[in-house]
Amino acid sequence: MIAQQYKEMLKAKSVIRQLSEFATARGKEIGYENVFDYSLGNPSVPAPQAFTDKMIELLKNENPIDIHGYSPSLGIPEVKEKIASSLNKRFGMNYTGNHIFPTAGAAGAISHALRAVTVPGDEVLTFAPFFPEYHPYIDLSGASLKVVPANTETFQINFEAFQEMLTNKVTAVLINSPNNPSGIVYSEETIQKLAEVLKAKEKEYGHDIFILSDEPYREIAFDGKKVPYVSNYYDNTLSCYSFSKSLSLPGERIGYVAVNPACTDAEYIVPMCGQISRGIGHNCPASIIQLAVAEVLDQTADLSVYERNMNLLYDELKALGFTVVRPGGTFYIFPKALEEHSIAFCEKAKKYDLILVPGDSFGCPGYFRMAYCIDTEKVERSLTALRKFVETEYR
Amino acid sequence: MIAQQYKEMLKAKSVIRQLSEFATARGKEIGYENVFDYSLGNPSVPAPQAFTDKMIELLKNENPIDIHGYSPSLGIPEVKEKIASSLNKRFGMNYTGNHIFPTAGAAGAISHALRAVTVPGDEVLTFAPFFPEYHPYIDLSGASLKVVPANTETFQINFEAFQEMLTNKVTAVLINSPNNPSGIVYSEETIQKLAEVLKAKEKEYGHDIFILSDEPYREIAFDGKKVPYVSNYYDNTLSCYSFSKSLSLPGERIGYVAVNPACTDAEYIVPMCGQISRGIGHNCPASIIQLAVAEVLDQTADLSVYERNMNLLYDELKALGFTVVRPGGTFYIFPKALEEHSIAFCEKAKKYDLILVPGDSFGCPGYFRMAYCIDTEKVERSLTALRKFVETEYR
Repeated sequence: MIAQQYKEMLKAKSVIRQLSEFATARGKEIGYENVFDYSLGNPSVPAPQAFTDKMIELLKNENPIDIHGYSPSLGIPEVKEKIASSLNKRFGMNYTGNHIFPTAGAAGAISHALRAVTVPGDEVLTFAPFFPEYHPYIDLSGASLKVVPANTETFQINFEAFQEMLTNKVTAVLINSPNNPSGIVYSEETIQKLAEVLKAKEKEYGHDIFILSDEPYREIAFDGKKVPYVSNYYDNTLSCYSFSKSLSLPGERIGYVAVNPACTDAEYIVPMCGQISRGIGHNCPASIIQLAVAEVLDQTADLSVYERNMNLLYDELKALGFTVVRPGGTFYIFPKALEEHSIAFCEKAKKYDLILVPGDSFGCPGYFRMAYCIDTEKVERSLTALRKFVETEYR
Repeated sequence: MIAQQYKEMLKAKSVIRQLSEFATARGKEIGYENVFDYSLGNPSVPAPQAFTDKMIELLKNENPIDIHGYSPSLGIPEVKEKIASSLNKRFGMNYTGNHIFPTAGAAGAISHALRAVTVPGDEVLTFAPFFPEYHPYIDLSGASLKVVPANTETFQINFEAFQEMLTNKVTAVLINSPNNPSGIVYSEETIQKLAEVLKAKEKEYGHDIFILSDEPYREIAFDGKKVPYVSNYYDNTLSCYSFSKSLSLPGERIGYVAVNPACTDAEYIVPMCGQISRGIGHNCPASIIQLAVAEVLDQTADLSVYERNMNLLYDELKALGFTVVRPGGTFYIFPKALEEHSIAFCEKAKKYDLILVPGDSFGCPGYFRMAYCIDTEKVERSLTALRKFVETEYR
């Protein structure tokens, strides 16, 4: 029986994808260098040379049967140990390799973590603005995603709305800090308050409520600040990480779930992820990629371009009178549009070859996202277009 | 809510995994070279040098942002085109790139194909003996797997039992030829008859019945014979392929679904697979692996060792009086045990450092599997142990 559910989904075309296609088409007309394409969150800096070197070394010197052989279903033990050590050193945790489950990026991590701690029918809460792919990730698992409205003042958590929605049916809360699309980093205070609220509700309801912490932007933090590590504040935390952004390897699909050793059933969660894999055909990231990444865990691509770009854009947006919260990390910024309907606003921006994404699909209409993972030179040139757009359309 | 379903699954330990662990432990006592470990189906020959060379070339000469960037969610277009061309040339098909969905091996391929053409509650039939992972693949999707008893004379299809079980609830039939564990290749006659039965039942029931053709061993065929390509005989066929065995890359998780252009909703199936991916966190195989494999599609690792090993084992098993069907491909052989209970039989074999897998978990008690993807020299030495085992225990 052709699965109508998936066939129906084909009708809903991704807004971001459509904008990106528009940018490509427009690029063919006027040269892509003249399109200020802020649509897609693709890393724009190369992977560290150490990663490339390690890959070549493995290919040249190791037995192909070893480096291309099956990864054990819970991941390559030495790789898991190295990831655990790196996290322990950086965040004062006490992971062992047994708490680490390598996955195909953060998407794979969330898919496994989610299925380990929720069952179909459960509710999962997330906070606007949020990454729109959370909907298929959660809803197609049989759980259902409910979105807590944004605190648009700061893009920290709207605790009033959160506490209202935190019913007995909620078994997991999915957070993303540094945040796509707002660029905001949850403060220590926010995370502490979140932990307190959840602990109280766990007690009241008599069941666990897990935090699924989606952390692909953990390494892209600005102003020399550190991103608080959620597991330090709340035991029932599963960290879902991806090397896509930190090592600029999005196509290689590599990340992990890190299970807080203090969480409920901590020793079972990784083996359960192995069982979940059997049902979704996942079976670990590519073995050579696991092996190479394990050697460059404490490195990153040169991420400084993102902070430079953020500063340029933030200053210009402020100068032009936008309401905008200064990002603490990522490569996104999320200003308020200059008219009520951000879809109309972004449509007008196209005339100036500015490709902006309306906030509607992030659960935050009236705002728009700019993904500034592009060359700084292009950001600089885009400022003129931005100024012209604002002055022509809104003065 | 901790998902008890997956926690419960941890209690059932894989028989094959346990035997493999026994072999490793025994190897520590007497040297692994002295353990005749026929438990695991891991390729024992290296990947082709051309693959390694291509990987190094990409890493050395290409822009890391290109080779490690996001793969489009339906796969890298040039890779898909090349796979289509190769299949068209070899099997007289008319695939385009749009009919190819790259996946993380055959497991990923089956997971997607299955969800595209079945809905929870549907029944999927397969034929004993069968790969035991089909149970979690199918059952955890919400469909249910029913196993048609074996035709133990030939290990072709038991059509009588099949037709009885082919009720209106069946929407897909999962086949695997060359077969794990029997090594048998379905004859053209078998596939023709299967196609006829299914076409008649599609008409009778008024709905599609898809063949999911699991083909990871397609390139390992013996006696110079060709494996019939299922899509040539039945339009509603989704071929689920893996490069794990043909290129000896099991850990790199690369394969594809090839959608027969003549099947129902052919143009929708690949895009639907893209939607399915969003729900299971799959998101395409590693980009560099896609790019490198696309350059060596018509090559294989040196697979001749498997045929040599098969001949050695088959001749000795026959000489020792075993009932055994001669494999037409793969690296498995599936003889009848010398006592009723194959678990007891395989347990006794351990005393002779022969690691054999009972047929019970393949849906065929009374038989046992030998995975002869090991060095020929070791196969030769194992024959003495086999002879001693049989003569001591069964004469």
